[in-house]
Amino acid sequence: MDFKEELKKYQEIINKELQKYVRKENCPEKVLNESMEYSLMAGGKRLRPILVIATYQLFKNDIKECLPYAVAIEMIHNFSLIHDDLPGIDNDDFRHGKPTNHKQFNEATAILAGDGLLNNAYIVISKDLLNTVDKSKLDIKMMVFKEFSYAVDRMIAGEYIDTEYEGKDVLEKYLEYMNANKTGALLRLSVRMGAYLAECEENDFKKLTNYAEKVGLAFQVKDDILSEEGDEKILGKPVGNDKKMKKCTYVSKYGIEEAKNKLDKLIEEAIKELTPYGEKAKFLVELALYVKNRNK
Amino acid sequence: MDFKEELKKYQEIINKELQKYVRKENCPEKVLNESMEYSLMAGGKRLRPILVIATYQLFKNDIKECLPYAVAIEMIHNFSLIHDDLPGIDNDDFRHGKPTNHKQFNEATAILAGDGLLNNAYIVISKDLLNTVDKSKLDIKMMVFKEFSYAVDRMIAGEYIDTEYEGKDVLEKYLEYMNANKTGALLRLSVRMGAYLAECEENDFKKLTNYAEKVGLAFQVKDDILSEEGDEKILGKPVGNDKKMKKCTYVSKYGIEEAKNKLDKLIEEAIKELTPYGEKAKFLVELALYVKNRNK
Repeated sequence: MDFKEELKKYQEIINKELQKYVRKENCPEKVLNESMEYSLMAGGKRLRPILVIATYQLFKNDIKECLPYAVAIEMIHNFSLIHDDLPGIDNDDFRHGKPTNHKQFNEATAILAGDGLLNNAYIVISKDLLNTVDKSKLDIKMMVFKEFSYAVDRMIAGEYIDTEYEGKDVLEKYLEYMNANKTGALLRLSVRMGAYLAECEENDFKKLTNYAEKVGLAFQVKDDILSEEGDEKILGKPVGNDKKMKKCTYVSKYGIEEAKNKLDKLIEEAIKELTPYGEKAKFLVELALYVKNRNK
Repeated sequence: MDFKEELKKYQEIINKELQKYVRKENCPEKVLNESMEYSLMAGGKRLRPILVIATYQLFKNDIKECLPYAVAIEMIHNFSLIHDDLPGIDNDDFRHGKPTNHKQFNEATAILAGDGLLNNAYIVISKDLLNTVDKSKLDIKMMVFKEFSYAVDRMIAGEYIDTEYEGKDVLEKYLEYMNANKTGALLRLSVRMGAYLAECEENDFKKLTNYAEKVGLAFQVKDDILSEEGDEKILGKPVGNDKKMKKCTYVSKYGIEEAKNKLDKLIEEAIKELTPYGEKAKFLVELALYVKNRNK
């Protein structure tokens, strides 16, 4: 199977799983549920849940165990997109080629839909904890729960720094710190959750964390490049917004060529961490290359 | 000790406990942490954490075990206040006699501070789960975690209905549903968490849930009355906003006299549930009367 097909297969698994959590009842808060569904099923890349599952599969085959965590992290990702797009933060009108949540519904609904998705991630985790039959697994799952909540905290802090430092010239160390939090924390968490749940060795855990941190940083560098020179039609959102908002990005700080060099280097280093796993890690290698070469 | 003194003693316990979770590091997201602290320490009544602790004390003395859950629910309450006050929802300028979070900081910070407090509640719960030495307690705590996440979900739904039905004449059953969710869910959860953690009998659990549901509804009726005829200076926020926003409240639907009758009846019924506990429940009885008689 080639990479594109395999990616699509993963996306289908995740979309099918997410669909189980979409609420269809005819209740007074029906439209709130629809707004959560609108964003959750808007057709993102599903990179985070794919990282959970693909990392888990390096060590174990039956992915059932890690699916709730794949779902939970995708809920968190979508909560963060809804809130980032709000008029009070980035004020974006389009996402994935569709109106943003507050444009499609309204601002109050978008704020509450974001809150709802953030909270729903924890509903999913709490149910998985309670449903754990093999009690010897509880220590690992509680550790995952704790790391999950800390990573979300870091993501929120990163987003804050992003808005706070708009229009300011930021020191290199702050740019790194912001991105390690804003984008890095959830991508790192995705890989580490897969690794935790598959109960890998300490040495594997270190290598995979390195892989995740490099890919996470590379993802942000690529995002900054796309925001400067991507194709609006393919991206599904306007290009040049970072510049307009005077965001501090890798491109604004180092220029586009330097940003591209950094991207290449990060992905090369990330892939090197996977050498010991040989053929088994083929998909994770190609996923890193996809992060580098994607045009949306 | 009279009720006022006892209430103050509880508030001090909670404020001291909350203070432990305030982050003081000098980091790039320092102001975000300050905005969370600003709302969390703004001097609310602490009704929810007090209900957790006082219910727990009906059965057990050492309250240490229930403190993390008292903290977590107060974080949730404050997240909901910050988001409700936002320009996109209620657009309120004052809370507890001080500028609302987005007025004191800015809108982006307030959105993210709300997100941060919501998420922090789960950090607190995850740490408590991991730190549980007596593993036989884990089943109860995981059940509390699940009920916690469901109650927050209900609160968000209630808030959505509140904004959605503004200016519309709402059926009685919707008004009940909205309030059972918006205010009721967290107050009910507070009492039930105290009861769960103290491992009371099924029969106690039912009585205390009834008490909580009555007090929760009464709390909202009283809020509606205060919003109509309270004293702005004591309340710390403008009076008459419900009317201005054409909110559907007990007062707008039934008139002030009928609302007051309903309040009296609910508190009387709530107190009746506590009869079996005699002197031990004195504080919970007085707390119900306080909900009825408070002027802020």
